[in-house]
Amino acid sequence: MQQKKRKLGRGVAVVGAGMSDFGMFKDKDSRDLLVEAYNEMVSSVDKGIDPKDIEAVWVGNFSNDFYTHQAHLGPIVADLLGHTPKPVTRTEGACAASTLAFKDACFAIASGFYDVVMACGVEEMSKLSTEEATEGLALALDKPYEGIVGFTFPGVFGALATAYFEKYGATRDDLMNVTIKSHSNAPFNPKAQFKATVRDLMNRRIERAKKKGDPVPAWKDEKEALWDPMFNPPIAWPMHLYDCCPMSDGASAVLLVAEEIARNFTDNPVYVIGMGQGSGRPLHTGASLTSFEANQNGAKEAYEMSGLTPKDIQFAEVHDCFSIAELIHTEDLGFFKPGEAYKAVAEGQTRRDGPMPINTSGGLKCKGHPVGATGLAQMHEIWEQLRGEAGERQIPNKNLRIGATQNLGGTGGTCTFCIFERR
Amino acid sequence: MQQKKRKLGRGVAVVGAGMSDFGMFKDKDSRDLLVEAYNEMVSSVDKGIDPKDIEAVWVGNFSNDFYTHQAHLGPIVADLLGHTPKPVTRTEGACAASTLAFKDACFAIASGFYDVVMACGVEEMSKLSTEEATEGLALALDKPYEGIVGFTFPGVFGALATAYFEKYGATRDDLMNVTIKSHSNAPFNPKAQFKATVRDLMNRRIERAKKKGDPVPAWKDEKEALWDPMFNPPIAWPMHLYDCCPMSDGASAVLLVAEEIARNFTDNPVYVIGMGQGSGRPLHTGASLTSFEANQNGAKEAYEMSGLTPKDIQFAEVHDCFSIAELIHTEDLGFFKPGEAYKAVAEGQTRRDGPMPINTSGGLKCKGHPVGATGLAQMHEIWEQLRGEAGERQIPNKNLRIGATQNLGGTGGTCTFCIFERR
Repeated sequence: MQQKKRKLGRGVAVVGAGMSDFGMFKDKDSRDLLVEAYNEMVSSVDKGIDPKDIEAVWVGNFSNDFYTHQAHLGPIVADLLGHTPKPVTRTEGACAASTLAFKDACFAIASGFYDVVMACGVEEMSKLSTEEATEGLALALDKPYEGIVGFTFPGVFGALATAYFEKYGATRDDLMNVTIKSHSNAPFNPKAQFKATVRDLMNRRIERAKKKGDPVPAWKDEKEALWDPMFNPPIAWPMHLYDCCPMSDGASAVLLVAEEIARNFTDNPVYVIGMGQGSGRPLHTGASLTSFEANQNGAKEAYEMSGLTPKDIQFAEVHDCFSIAELIHTEDLGFFKPGEAYKAVAEGQTRRDGPMPINTSGGLKCKGHPVGATGLAQMHEIWEQLRGEAGERQIPNKNLRIGATQNLGGTGGTCTFCIFERR
Repeated sequence: MQQKKRKLGRGVAVVGAGMSDFGMFKDKDSRDLLVEAYNEMVSSVDKGIDPKDIEAVWVGNFSNDFYTHQAHLGPIVADLLGHTPKPVTRTEGACAASTLAFKDACFAIASGFYDVVMACGVEEMSKLSTEEATEGLALALDKPYEGIVGFTFPGVFGALATAYFEKYGATRDDLMNVTIKSHSNAPFNPKAQFKATVRDLMNRRIERAKKKGDPVPAWKDEKEALWDPMFNPPIAWPMHLYDCCPMSDGASAVLLVAEEIARNFTDNPVYVIGMGQGSGRPLHTGASLTSFEANQNGAKEAYEMSGLTPKDIQFAEVHDCFSIAELIHTEDLGFFKPGEAYKAVAEGQTRRDGPMPINTSGGLKCKGHPVGATGLAQMHEIWEQLRGEAGERQIPNKNLRIGATQNLGGTGGTCTFCIFERR
């Protein structure tokens, strides 16, 4: 069968987006966070939305089964939002769960069955210990091949970084550039779990040392601090603490409508012009350690649907669960050539004021990574940037028109790529 | 907004269906079962299918997270079937998980994005003890309202049966009629977990008593045996053992294509003419105990899409996780008036040779209920019946043209209803 150009029979637009604060909350559970995200989404609709007009909902969640002993989130979301008896479907694809909710919601509109639907995502991870939460995340590995031999995610991404270093000559300094860039955006994101630059964090440590009468660190710059294992301890070599995203709780939501009615909701919709997804084999099969095959299929589908090439993408949120992942993704998607991403980061190309801003939200590293909420939280950033509503972290490019999100689950088992346009 | 008639912009047809044996397997896991279902699906395609032409997959699974400590089934399914790097999306809606996979797969075809996709479902439950598996199933309850007060599913359905008895004057004898009818179909389903009639089971018990020299039961008929607590012990009043479906392992799969290319695959496709889904509130909200509001929304959507009324449905597979559920569902879908289903069953209307055959597969009660595989296994029965391939359990009606499946998750939290036509 001849591969055809992917397309939707009916266009889809985002007309609202919301997210909860991301963080570790002792006093909020999944339901509270979903309501926060939903309320913000509803109030973000410029011309208003009667929630009764939402015909169906998709919810992405990785494993509240494990984290809170609650599966079957569909009817709970419905009850919570006053949506019962209308449908709610849960999707799961590890950390890409809510992008799968988004995609299936788009298909449902494009099919003609619904005109107005919501996609949301949620995860509640912080009430478990780090050990338990890590065990939970390991459910996303291929158990008999990866899980059972003791791999956890920091270990997997440590292996990828080692392979990347070996192949392309990058070093830990190059990973640090990713971290420093992400933290440079974080103070301007009011939803972020960590709102500090690396310099802020260094200053806090210095103040604490002074207060306690400990020896005061005399780091000359961020890099020297990040090389100091007392400031940035090793997790799984070469991944150190500041290469790793945190455990988080949070929720996110977008309102999707058929393109032809988008302007009933806002004069400033964001159109879905590309969607793609791929699957990848576990590491024991000899999968590449410096590229995700799932990314390549996701990119192929989304570029085919949009008719665009990587050069057309002006900025993106990519899945930086670990600093190395950001480098690999931006190469897989064609923003940079293989082996060139770390150089581009060093040159400042991915900064907010660079030619290809990446993770202006602060990324998973700083914004936080409640895994089932992440895909749609990335879209929340695209929504705010394309509409010029990102406040102090607004990308200075005045012709911002096309942004993208890339989301990864497992060890590259599921990758998605979505492209959005302001017209 | 005016509710419009639901429709898909592009028709969808089933051109292949397969399922594994259902049962409790010590020597097979989820992967083995998925391959069994997939292989049967591929070989069921009359004019053949090159598996490389399958563009995307949806997989329904309730909680292998809990049962086998393996979430993120998407890439595993892809790897298993040689489908990598193409997309696989997992859906979850408790025991309705694979119908949600089916629906999202249909939306994707109807959207125009894909032409050929697979929907499959799997669950592996039997390697846990009954206590552990029951705890796993309880993840589908609303935890803070239902789970935490000690409800389990037999208890919930016992409460529904009690309410039904009180409202309509039914008794345990009426539930027994459902059980006897389901078991009357079971010997003719080669995939079924239990292939015995109630009479067969009585005879086995009598033989065993004779062999052991125990007092030999002198039941005059099936009902007398089912009233005997030594044969049919209580589980949660009025639910006794033979009112309850078993714990099962199994997998199921269907091949879906765009209507306009269906005849490239078979001269005998089965068309998807109605799809619907609803959500329901947990019991503490005062939800009805004799009807599921989620069913009513599912029925509304599917009847609107098909333009049919309940009278047009000639036979159905409905979600008889407990005998009482079969009665409620057939009323909610309009096959029988409220409070009339138990009388219809007593009159033999739902037998294979009756005017409205229900659960000719043996139902969940006898076929088995690997929860994430059940929705598509119901469709497997519709596929075989509509194509005249159901062997000894073939419905004798020579004009069989329209069949339906109804699937329930949780305490009615998610219900689906799908209508199929042979043209």
